[in-house]
Amino acid sequence: MEKQIKLDHGSGGMASRRLVESLFLKYLKSPVLAGMQDSAVIGSVDGRMAFSTDSYVVDPIFFPGGSIGDLAVNGTVNDLAMSGAAPVCLSLSFILEEGFQLAQLEAILQDIARACGHAGLDIVTGDTKVVPRGKADKIFVNTSGIGQIPEGINISPSRIRQGDAILVSGSIANHGATILAERLGLDSNDVLTSDTCPLNHLAAAILETAPDAVHAMRDPTRGGLATALWELAESSGCCFEIEEEAIPVEPPVRAVCELTGIDPLYLANEGRCIVIAAREQASTIRELMRSVEQGSGATVIGRVTGNRAANVILSTRSGGSRLIEPLSGEPLPRIC
Amino acid sequence: MEKQIKLDHGSGGMASRRLVESLFLKYLKSPVLAGMQDSAVIGSVDGRMAFSTDSYVVDPIFFPGGSIGDLAVNGTVNDLAMSGAAPVCLSLSFILEEGFQLAQLEAILQDIARACGHAGLDIVTGDTKVVPRGKADKIFVNTSGIGQIPEGINISPSRIRQGDAILVSGSIANHGATILAERLGLDSNDVLTSDTCPLNHLAAAILETAPDAVHAMRDPTRGGLATALWELAESSGCCFEIEEEAIPVEPPVRAVCELTGIDPLYLANEGRCIVIAAREQASTIRELMRSVEQGSGATVIGRVTGNRAANVILSTRSGGSRLIEPLSGEPLPRIC
Repeated sequence: MEKQIKLDHGSGGMASRRLVESLFLKYLKSPVLAGMQDSAVIGSVDGRMAFSTDSYVVDPIFFPGGSIGDLAVNGTVNDLAMSGAAPVCLSLSFILEEGFQLAQLEAILQDIARACGHAGLDIVTGDTKVVPRGKADKIFVNTSGIGQIPEGINISPSRIRQGDAILVSGSIANHGATILAERLGLDSNDVLTSDTCPLNHLAAAILETAPDAVHAMRDPTRGGLATALWELAESSGCCFEIEEEAIPVEPPVRAVCELTGIDPLYLANEGRCIVIAAREQASTIRELMRSVEQGSGATVIGRVTGNRAANVILSTRSGGSRLIEPLSGEPLPRIC
Repeated sequence: MEKQIKLDHGSGGMASRRLVESLFLKYLKSPVLAGMQDSAVIGSVDGRMAFSTDSYVVDPIFFPGGSIGDLAVNGTVNDLAMSGAAPVCLSLSFILEEGFQLAQLEAILQDIARACGHAGLDIVTGDTKVVPRGKADKIFVNTSGIGQIPEGINISPSRIRQGDAILVSGSIANHGATILAERLGLDSNDVLTSDTCPLNHLAAAILETAPDAVHAMRDPTRGGLATALWELAESSGCCFEIEEEAIPVEPPVRAVCELTGIDPLYLANEGRCIVIAAREQASTIRELMRSVEQGSGATVIGRVTGNRAANVILSTRSGGSRLIEPLSGEPLPRIC
């Protein structure tokens, strides 16, 4: 087998077929995918369906804690999970640069297969295009996903109510700080790793036990916790009050942020979620989140108040307060 | 509004939001998309579902008869239609190069909206990433789609039988020849245009009237008619005999092929299909195809014989015959 991607691999002819058969199907084991048709035919989905898509252009493609492969699976799984859906299957589409190392593609496929295993679902259909050298940067990945929303689940910012508790599933900004440190060539002694992980098991844990109490969920990816909270406040028309002291930020993440002057509230997370839940059940939900590996750092960071316009107010460590704005500008391109 | 794509537009913050609200939602009118959630929540799909994905990297992005926008919609609609599914909805994901002209993005969105209108379905969820100048070539588009396979429809190469008729829906190689002519700077006096179009209405026309008679369908995109026929023969284990004289090739397409030495059998089509159908109903199917705009050039080009191993044999104009091989190599990168 060749060592590099050639234009032939994107031709739709024999070289494409060899790439799929010898490499992709080696790791992606779905019998539907192995049928190699242009569409996957899958069973019916009972009830409402969730459908999501994301393209991934992260740079570097490998980083502590994961790769573009993990991100591509977890990101779409998480978008589905945040709508209350149980992910059913994914599609996978590559845009490869001529000359891309097949060994790197193989490592990415291994990550994709492992991430699919963790999330408990299959890649069922795919596509590969190759562009000449210099027309793309190594590899871009798109995943789209289908999920099934169980009967009785209704997750929407419109359900957010005065008094609701605001929780996060763990420490924030790990993914963004990890990418930032890699780009700057900082030696983090392996203490910094991306938080990329699937959130569907966490979502299922709380939705199965307390379906009515969970009003909204969101994974704060690009734009970070601040932008996600601002969007939820804006969609719900409610005011959120957040305690800076309650927001978990790990010391190495804080160190990178201090060095670069970037606020961790605006750095991307790829395996964290915000849950907005009925106040009376906040501690139940927190404990349910903590019972799942991906939610072991779950904590309440604030509450919804009804006495003002849609806003996010941060009570700072120093005793002051400030309004949280959504991200403007782009501090860190190609974060995911 | 700015005139060019900036890195901010891919930040997930305010600039991303402005781009979606001011430009994308201007043309893409789905109420589900307008909800701007990370996942679209759609109704249930009764029965079996089809799921397909494709990324589009065509160069040039605008060409006679269409653009990357038309291709991205029609390509995924056609993959769904070829599995017997009625397309339900699409996702849309952009990877944009910093500096890409917003006027070009707007023209592409108009094409996407118009193509969705022709196919009769909506974009319900999407994503936009921006990479720095030089890290991608202008614009790459991914669409993924969900379709619903009606009860009683069973389209599969495994249903191909000895005696079946092999039809194509119209003249071949128009898309490939158009892109080739554009790249070579040939002046085609507007006689060459891409065949890009949605095939779902054509597929529905034949499947509604003669569901049992349609055994397999395939749109011969990358790799052309030759590769698609070879794959169908291989999957079915049957021998196909094709008459070169019966395959419609328009004179300007033939002229480009003769000039470049590229066989039209290997050039991409983006709005044509192969239909393999029971012999007794071949003329009914041909007339049903002709009754739809996208199948007005439908014709029988050959038949399935059972007397040899899986093969495609072409009876040439000169009275000889040759074995058709699938595409090897890549005569024309970035065709779609």
